[in-house]
Amino acid sequence: MSEEKTVTACLIIIGNEILSGRTQDANLAYLAKWLNEEAGVQLTESRVILDIEETIVDTVNECRAKFDYVFTTGGIGPTHDDITSPSVSKAFGVEWELHPQAHELLKEYYGPEGLTSARARMAFTPKGAELIDNPISKAPGFQMENVFVMAGIPIVMQAMLESLKHRLTGGSPVRSRSVRVHLPESQIATTLRELQEANANSDIGSYPFYHKGKGGTSIVVRSTDEDLIDKIVDSVYRHAFELGGDPEFEDAG
Amino acid sequence: MSEEKTVTACLIIIGNEILSGRTQDANLAYLAKWLNEEAGVQLTESRVILDIEETIVDTVNECRAKFDYVFTTGGIGPTHDDITSPSVSKAFGVEWELHPQAHELLKEYYGPEGLTSARARMAFTPKGAELIDNPISKAPGFQMENVFVMAGIPIVMQAMLESLKHRLTGGSPVRSRSVRVHLPESQIATTLRELQEANANSDIGSYPFYHKGKGGTSIVVRSTDEDLIDKIVDSVYRHAFELGGDPEFEDAG
Repeated sequence: MSEEKTVTACLIIIGNEILSGRTQDANLAYLAKWLNEEAGVQLTESRVILDIEETIVDTVNECRAKFDYVFTTGGIGPTHDDITSPSVSKAFGVEWELHPQAHELLKEYYGPEGLTSARARMAFTPKGAELIDNPISKAPGFQMENVFVMAGIPIVMQAMLESLKHRLTGGSPVRSRSVRVHLPESQIATTLRELQEANANSDIGSYPFYHKGKGGTSIVVRSTDEDLIDKIVDSVYRHAFELGGDPEFEDAG
Repeated sequence: MSEEKTVTACLIIIGNEILSGRTQDANLAYLAKWLNEEAGVQLTESRVILDIEETIVDTVNECRAKFDYVFTTGGIGPTHDDITSPSVSKAFGVEWELHPQAHELLKEYYGPEGLTSARARMAFTPKGAELIDNPISKAPGFQMENVFVMAGIPIVMQAMLESLKHRLTGGSPVRSRSVRVHLPESQIATTLRELQEANANSDIGSYPFYHKGKGGTSIVVRSTDEDLIDKIVDSVYRHAFELGGDPEFEDAG
């Protein structure tokens, strides 16, 4: 979409509870916006996978070769189903070992007696990992090369992101503006196709909506070039007006 | 998890708007529960990908070889960014052509004058596709072998699922029960690990929660064997009670 090289990321969501439908993921949308706005990195793909060692190993290895950055969420707690950390060790072909700095953090937080064997598991990382600070509940995430292993609980994940921000190098953030028109998608389709073909350095999306019994289309224009966005949005607005579509600007989204 | 062979499915969510964080996916959780309850099929993986032809082709081809069933959502409307259908044709190496039955449906719905060229695009499918009925807005989905191509709008996707139900053959549905205990995960971790090791035909998940300033752990037991679930849940309850964890049964989820 951009003429400068896009810096890409993939989010691997690890957890049976998402795939059973019990829990609704809340990390993808947050990460996508944060990566774009704070780091100029584009979330390009996401995978939701089961807590199975072989699946985690294969997915991490495929994605770390394919994307600039990989983020994982979930599976780093103290219970038997938290197998992300040893699985990432296996993916990198390194030992899973006690990380002295993580051990110190947990000892300090829980006290020497509170550091049960289950909790001490959270001080193990792949050999060579760099910790990711967890200001909420102390048990750290970690980075191995371009892979960032984070907690699944949204407030913890969000705090971890803040603490790893300086480790990411991205490009220009993608900006967006949108126009809401009271026309079915099909009536504005030709206009949008022509605008997209004429403006390669943009991404024009068309999303039907229904609200209080009235339907229409949200048109979202995304680009790293804000002048180009304004130009396209004005053109969409004008065309929609001429078609009787009663256009309105929406908040960027 | 089960001793009978698990029938697996993968959901491919196609849409830049999900990966930009603009739209929160609502189809994964619904599909996961529906597949399990209505068809005995287990959602085993999900991928969220961009509207890029090569990405769609590669992902569909990888997943249809790997899983028993593949479902896609999104990208089957009338606009330039709706490229799922021609991309699936390419994945199967067949022509993308006018489907006479889909054409009739749309002509009837929109009337001969209302069937603009943008709308007529929605009557094209891969050669050999079997339509999936859309009782909401008529434009059909379609099936190619084990791949089911559906709309992204949740109410339409849900209606399409009902109409393709008889085409799926699954196994026994997975049942679940859960217990909420007022203990940190780490305090019940050893109990859970032992129960999981003793009961291979089950999946015991542990999920920390925070609610009104109080924390604890939800323990979810899943299996196709309901007697086994009851046995494990009772055991969790008893152990949590002995540990002073004030256990309560939750609604299954």
